[in-house]
Amino acid sequence: MFRTHTNGELTLENLNEEVTLSGWVQTIRDKGFMVWIDLRDRYGLTQLVFDQERSSENLMAEVKNLGREFVIQIKGTVIERASKNPKILTGEIEILVKDLSLLNASELPPFTIEDQTDGGEELRMKYRYLDIRRNPVKNKLIFRHKMAQKVRNYLTEKEFIEVETPVLIKSTPEGARDFVVPSRMNPGQFYALPQSPQTFKQLLMVGGMDRYFQIVKCFRDEDLRADRQPEFTQIDCELAFVEQQDVLEIFEGLTAKLLEDVTGNVYGEFPRMTYQEAMTRYGNDKPDIRFAMEFVELNELVKGKDFKIFDDASLVVGINVEGCADYTRKQIDALVDWIKRPQVGASGLVWIKYQADGTLSSSVNKFYSEADLQLIAKKFEAKPGDLMLILSGEEQKARTQLSALRMELGNQLGLRNPNEFAPLWVVDFPLLEWDPESNRYHAMHHPFTSPKPEDIGLLETSPGEVRANAYDLILNGNEIGGGSVRIHDQKFQSKMFDLLGFTKEEAQSQFGFLMDAFKYGAPPHAGLALGFDRLVAILDGNEVIRDYIAFPKNNAGRDVMIDAPSSVSELQLDELQLKIVEKA
Amino acid sequence: MFRTHTNGELTLENLNEEVTLSGWVQTIRDKGFMVWIDLRDRYGLTQLVFDQERSSENLMAEVKNLGREFVIQIKGTVIERASKNPKILTGEIEILVKDLSLLNASELPPFTIEDQTDGGEELRMKYRYLDIRRNPVKNKLIFRHKMAQKVRNYLTEKEFIEVETPVLIKSTPEGARDFVVPSRMNPGQFYALPQSPQTFKQLLMVGGMDRYFQIVKCFRDEDLRADRQPEFTQIDCELAFVEQQDVLEIFEGLTAKLLEDVTGNVYGEFPRMTYQEAMTRYGNDKPDIRFAMEFVELNELVKGKDFKIFDDASLVVGINVEGCADYTRKQIDALVDWIKRPQVGASGLVWIKYQADGTLSSSVNKFYSEADLQLIAKKFEAKPGDLMLILSGEEQKARTQLSALRMELGNQLGLRNPNEFAPLWVVDFPLLEWDPESNRYHAMHHPFTSPKPEDIGLLETSPGEVRANAYDLILNGNEIGGGSVRIHDQKFQSKMFDLLGFTKEEAQSQFGFLMDAFKYGAPPHAGLALGFDRLVAILDGNEVIRDYIAFPKNNAGRDVMIDAPSSVSELQLDELQLKIVEKA
Repeated sequence: MFRTHTNGELTLENLNEEVTLSGWVQTIRDKGFMVWIDLRDRYGLTQLVFDQERSSENLMAEVKNLGREFVIQIKGTVIERASKNPKILTGEIEILVKDLSLLNASELPPFTIEDQTDGGEELRMKYRYLDIRRNPVKNKLIFRHKMAQKVRNYLTEKEFIEVETPVLIKSTPEGARDFVVPSRMNPGQFYALPQSPQTFKQLLMVGGMDRYFQIVKCFRDEDLRADRQPEFTQIDCELAFVEQQDVLEIFEGLTAKLLEDVTGNVYGEFPRMTYQEAMTRYGNDKPDIRFAMEFVELNELVKGKDFKIFDDASLVVGINVEGCADYTRKQIDALVDWIKRPQVGASGLVWIKYQADGTLSSSVNKFYSEADLQLIAKKFEAKPGDLMLILSGEEQKARTQLSALRMELGNQLGLRNPNEFAPLWVVDFPLLEWDPESNRYHAMHHPFTSPKPEDIGLLETSPGEVRANAYDLILNGNEIGGGSVRIHDQKFQSKMFDLLGFTKEEAQSQFGFLMDAFKYGAPPHAGLALGFDRLVAILDGNEVIRDYIAFPKNNAGRDVMIDAPSSVSELQLDELQLKIVEKA
Repeated sequence: MFRTHTNGELTLENLNEEVTLSGWVQTIRDKGFMVWIDLRDRYGLTQLVFDQERSSENLMAEVKNLGREFVIQIKGTVIERASKNPKILTGEIEILVKDLSLLNASELPPFTIEDQTDGGEELRMKYRYLDIRRNPVKNKLIFRHKMAQKVRNYLTEKEFIEVETPVLIKSTPEGARDFVVPSRMNPGQFYALPQSPQTFKQLLMVGGMDRYFQIVKCFRDEDLRADRQPEFTQIDCELAFVEQQDVLEIFEGLTAKLLEDVTGNVYGEFPRMTYQEAMTRYGNDKPDIRFAMEFVELNELVKGKDFKIFDDASLVVGINVEGCADYTRKQIDALVDWIKRPQVGASGLVWIKYQADGTLSSSVNKFYSEADLQLIAKKFEAKPGDLMLILSGEEQKARTQLSALRMELGNQLGLRNPNEFAPLWVVDFPLLEWDPESNRYHAMHHPFTSPKPEDIGLLETSPGEVRANAYDLILNGNEIGGGSVRIHDQKFQSKMFDLLGFTKEEAQSQFGFLMDAFKYGAPPHAGLALGFDRLVAILDGNEVIRDYIAFPKNNAGRDVMIDAPSSVSELQLDELQLKIVEKA
């Protein structure tokens, strides 16, 4: 037996017990006549003591050969520590070692195995197995497991059945790019890895499975932005005989439960906001509502005062930044520079300061009188001490830019506390969005999303105005999930494919099986998918998902630890009847 | 709201309640003035009644338009049935319908949605979504979910952490054939889909994760035998600081718990048997021990009696079939034909009948006297009424053939009751097996398996005799899992790759990351993987796994429902820099 206890559990209650422990050497303090070792495992640290007076000569010699990250097993007696460490559970005891076995030596690790390591991102990824020994990474993986267990238990209690859908499926050019898998048994043909189990979960509804979920790997062959992974995990759900309201209630319940577990607070009904309202109030379909700074539209107050920039703009819109009237020139210039960066792309910023003494000053004093500014300040509901920031231009652009500025100020002013949580439903998304490139409408969510019944009449006349029964779950400014009520009528689904520019043949070859299924009594159904990697990161007070994935890939889609992808043998390619073509 | 109740819950306790139900029309009995419909959903059946006297004319007209598998919603009152059905929970009530909405019509399904369907395998697979509506398939998927939940909860209680390992990994030519995935971002390079997370779980042990599990999809591009799937699910586990005994105890506990849940019986310690013993007693490394019929070796009793076949054989071995001395000539001929089939390949069978009157007769009376036969019968511990069946030939072949015969007789005699469970550990597997084709040793389990310490000396001299710390979990004659204590010493792992014929370069390019990891303090570790599809099937009293997989593939690796694999566009191939080569 390698151990009687872990390194995280011995206390004064175990005093004088003979124990066997195993683990890694975290630190060695060698005073010559006495040596202390912190022995580490997944569960904690236990202090070992080797003492010239109480330990054998051999043992004292052996311990001198140990180094950091050596794996050892010891037998010894639990004794009370002279100087206690109240910060850890095992801090009142130490082990007087009688017997030491070296289980494995270690070379000097390429970075320190400490909470704060000296290893950079690249090195940590190459030696991910060492990185995982560190508490911050280890704890994130354990947290992820606990959340997955809670999700499964919650959904199981609600009569959901986890069904495994296939990984080797069929490529559909719609949406993002698929990873494909050549089939040796069917040469020249390919499977695709699923971007989501969408069609399979809908087929399960046709199959009467009623309440399905799956925590499932999905795949997208996209050029990776920071913090995007080619394989990612979804909590994927679908329900039959439900309306939007039923779906929202169940997953509000799930999210509230996870939040309660994490914070200890109770989360009641989540606020709901239409897409239109979110865009108007925050310029963003995933607003962070932990702080206000809502958009104030100023067209009727600022136009016609000879300020050409505002006169030419289709929208003049601003936010009131509370308590920031004392921003210096330098601080304001920094904000101007920030919004002029190509990532934001605004051309300038107008500010109005509501001084503490009640007077108003602005960057556009030339055009606006004190009385004008008073009216504007009133519209902002500003108080003395506040700073109003105003952008203008084409409506959509101005909103997007102001939203970026709002989020940046939220960060700068510490209004985005990662341990405070503000969930929100955004509902009534547009069904379609115009794609100028292909000169046609695309499904904003996916082609299976159902329009709101009252908007169906608009499909022929103003497709862009049709709202969908589609909803997103937002947490702290992040979209953590989304879903919709689906189309379950075969004829209507077929019409939707027409509208989206599919030829009959394309629709049939890609989704024929789904439309066939709809002929045999498809029930009304709706669903939702949550991005599990991101959800876990946010619940744990982080926004970087990489550390919540045991073995992530880098931005080039590579696993630098195992060095994948890699070349394969000629034999493998021959069997697949494939040839690599060098690009000209 | 689509329903206030499911179709599986209303009883006399709900009498006179107004309810809303939704579901599929299972059956319609139309007596003209009265119509009964069985309404079905995942939860059960509820009888609806439409009655000329109590229902409106409109309603009576509408109900006449319904057909099987139509999806409807009804509102009505729970009333007591005149003729009750005690077989179902809802059998004492029916719903007097007031209101009927057609949610979706259905074409006539291609097979009946009944427990016993008229649909053949191929049709059922093409319309799998309809097949899933049938109780036998639906219940199997629900059973699978329940087992997965129990596994996760058991392992979580035991401090295991479920960690998701990557699906896009690196191809290693060792073992079965990999599915590969071309990388667009790294042209000419490929990911592979994992045959198991073996190396990753070992890296997690190096990472201190200590107790890992995962219910995970694995992939093998093999020519499919019946009931083999290119993608399958494993319960994959690994533990650090454990010995073989610890692993066996934990997974014995898990299996016993699942068995207890299924049968209500208590399962104590599982029997253990060495590989050698299993081969000697049953000719098989996965014996079904629900019945005895153990092998009896007869060389010393049968040789030297001028029966050339036995004299020439390296092994003469038989089984005693209790109570079958009255087998007719025809029955015995059938057995002879059975073992002569190419799948078994025996050349003949010797029988000895221990007649009820105590006399002995045999197919080799010419060579063996009554006294000889008495001695043989004694060795068999046969009783009057028993039938002894004897095979001979090359030792390994004779054992394998007799094992096949033993299993066949087990089936024929009803000794393999699928609802009786006999788990068994087979331990001490050989580390290596000789492969005459490549003229070298292969790892019997995999190259990471550790030899038994006491056998390490044999590695140089008699590699074939080295036993491994490897173990299989057997249930009713099926291998449901296997594992081993791993090598954790870098130098020894490297030596093992040498022994298995890897060049240094091959070992480095394929497993360099693992050997690197072993340099930094790898703990002793061991693991196990259980085939989840098969485990679930056997626990549910079946051996066919296909129905426990929601969307299985056929023997050509095709999903006939979605028609995958399929061709991909030229654009996709171009982006991957691949070309399909027509075979000459």
